[in-house]
Amino acid sequence: MEVYLDNSATTKAFDEVGDLVRKVMCEDYGNPSSLHRKGMEAEWYVRGARETFARILKVQEKEIFFTSGGTESDNLALIGTARAYKRRGNHLITTVIEHPAILNTMRYLEEEEGFRVTYLPVDRYGRVKLSALREALCKETILVSIMYVNNEVGSVQPIKEASSIVKAYNREIIFHSDAVQGFGKYRIFPKREGIDLLTISSHKIHGPKGMGALYISDRVKIRPIVFGGEQQKNIRSGTENVPGIAGFALAAKMAYTNLEEKTMRMRNLKERFIQGVTKMEHVSVHGLADETSAPHIVSVGIAGVRSEVLLHTLEEKGIYVSSGSACSSNHPGISGVLKGIGVEREYLDATLRFSLSEFTTEEEIDYTLKTLYNCIPMLRRYRRR
Amino acid sequence: MEVYLDNSATTKAFDEVGDLVRKVMCEDYGNPSSLHRKGMEAEWYVRGARETFARILKVQEKEIFFTSGGTESDNLALIGTARAYKRRGNHLITTVIEHPAILNTMRYLEEEEGFRVTYLPVDRYGRVKLSALREALCKETILVSIMYVNNEVGSVQPIKEASSIVKAYNREIIFHSDAVQGFGKYRIFPKREGIDLLTISSHKIHGPKGMGALYISDRVKIRPIVFGGEQQKNIRSGTENVPGIAGFALAAKMAYTNLEEKTMRMRNLKERFIQGVTKMEHVSVHGLADETSAPHIVSVGIAGVRSEVLLHTLEEKGIYVSSGSACSSNHPGISGVLKGIGVEREYLDATLRFSLSEFTTEEEIDYTLKTLYNCIPMLRRYRRR
Repeated sequence: MEVYLDNSATTKAFDEVGDLVRKVMCEDYGNPSSLHRKGMEAEWYVRGARETFARILKVQEKEIFFTSGGTESDNLALIGTARAYKRRGNHLITTVIEHPAILNTMRYLEEEEGFRVTYLPVDRYGRVKLSALREALCKETILVSIMYVNNEVGSVQPIKEASSIVKAYNREIIFHSDAVQGFGKYRIFPKREGIDLLTISSHKIHGPKGMGALYISDRVKIRPIVFGGEQQKNIRSGTENVPGIAGFALAAKMAYTNLEEKTMRMRNLKERFIQGVTKMEHVSVHGLADETSAPHIVSVGIAGVRSEVLLHTLEEKGIYVSSGSACSSNHPGISGVLKGIGVEREYLDATLRFSLSEFTTEEEIDYTLKTLYNCIPMLRRYRRR
Repeated sequence: MEVYLDNSATTKAFDEVGDLVRKVMCEDYGNPSSLHRKGMEAEWYVRGARETFARILKVQEKEIFFTSGGTESDNLALIGTARAYKRRGNHLITTVIEHPAILNTMRYLEEEEGFRVTYLPVDRYGRVKLSALREALCKETILVSIMYVNNEVGSVQPIKEASSIVKAYNREIIFHSDAVQGFGKYRIFPKREGIDLLTISSHKIHGPKGMGALYISDRVKIRPIVFGGEQQKNIRSGTENVPGIAGFALAAKMAYTNLEEKTMRMRNLKERFIQGVTKMEHVSVHGLADETSAPHIVSVGIAGVRSEVLLHTLEEKGIYVSSGSACSSNHPGISGVLKGIGVEREYLDATLRFSLSEFTTEEEIDYTLKTLYNCIPMLRRYRRR
């Protein structure tokens, strides 16, 4: 049996998406910048995709920009606005539990472009402390970036409350949210939630890899970070990845079809898993386990077993999970997120992330639980001290 | 009949490449950063691809880095080295006929990061003037960027001579070449040609869109321009586009299979086309037409007919070509390249680019010629003055 429970790292593409990408690559392969029919055909895919995302997010088509992925979208959002508004101030705010695409970009802006960054703490459930946000805001603040759903523990951030605090302080401050883990699981409406910039990624929702988008409210000024042929209104140069864009849009459409039904199913499976796994002793679920947490992510600490050892033991049984976050390449180390939420020491190097998708079945969850019941007592016994 | 002669804008993906991309998306969909088998599987595709490019370019595997396309590779090459070597000097050199991905990045470096850029002129055949390069070099020079094949007129640059001049002046100066139009048509060996950084693109050689690579000699220091999970040795963060990388490598392998035979065929077709088209009066082929020019690009000035009008007339007959370069989005305007090589005024707004691929047939060339013979006299008659 093969059980893929690493869907927050990446997902299997929908078969329909695979078919469409292949078709656009081999048949409708024009360059949208070409003036002839083959170029127009390609341009239609791009426009259709923009329309799809505009409808899902309830924003304008002209506010959708395509990038090579969540990382590039985050970089464009932060560097692009920091540069555009630097005359207004040099202070940026984010949280300690952001994805490295945010944290390392912030670090770059601090070290190389003279910005000052405040990293907000989170509570023990992995939610940003709004009191800290209130205190951090100052005259120099130009940008606040808070993720939608944390990728390691699945905590959902109080985005609307956070953006309200920011806008009440100064409505000119730009509010960005990295929604890579939230898009496709939640109905996100930037205009209602006070989000000016929203990062989304394709390969987390059964779309093609190497594709992302950034919603940019038309009230926001942004500078490009990649220079060239001035495609996409000169916000993102480079021939559009038309097959990727078309595939991403189809994946989004499919993800949002019967969304509530699918997330309810995932939530039930998540609950079943949590109930099962916490029957064992010295096991702790990080963050919240209830319906205020993401439906697809469970972070479990299993005392007395090193996460890498357990990961490979599960792999032997055909179960694929993650130790910490797979988004950070080849850096096992200790998770900053787990530290950030104050996870007990015994769980810091003994935590696995199980992440579900709409394809996950009850049978797979039960097989995973059975396997854990079998191997954990054994592994604990062999643990060298 | 459909005749696609816009292969320098973009190409049809090989069917085999389409199949492979679909398979990797839907079956071997792991994240290379994941520690389990599905992650390893994905990593093998990336390694295999690196091996393919290393073999084709005769460089080391660790010198190959994947990006989202030629534009990003050019940006990484220029901004990444300019920042890494700025303490050594602030002078950069390029040519007036580069792709916008170079020219606009250079402009950014001038305007925002304090660099000084020299733009070298070209001769009437579109080849960089080496005497001007010699004069431009100075103590402050840290980087020279000269394209391999020009995308509008197909002129092949004297890369080896240029890099020799640069290295003789100061071997610490970095030499970059944008080989987006040269890769897949020429056997390019950076180490023999004195190239430290080489940009290549996938969708110009029947590979997936949204994919490129940068060869970075291991003697070169480079700073990342996108920050995140530190993939690819922290030179290019972001989950690797595994299907795109695998597809790009397969396309490269296929392009370099029987290369000489295929380019010879293209060259013969190009010659046949030039002989045919120059039978008409007031027609001029820009740049060189002989075997020192690229096998797949013909730039033709047809006096008395506006290029856009002719482009759409040909489109009506199923023939797809380009006016100027399709790489610059929605900017018809007058081509800087044609101006750069001193094309006569009457051809400046009356030039089309016909670009061939290995799929182009004699029948297609003859049909195109026949169509031109039929419509040009008519269009010239109707031309408003």
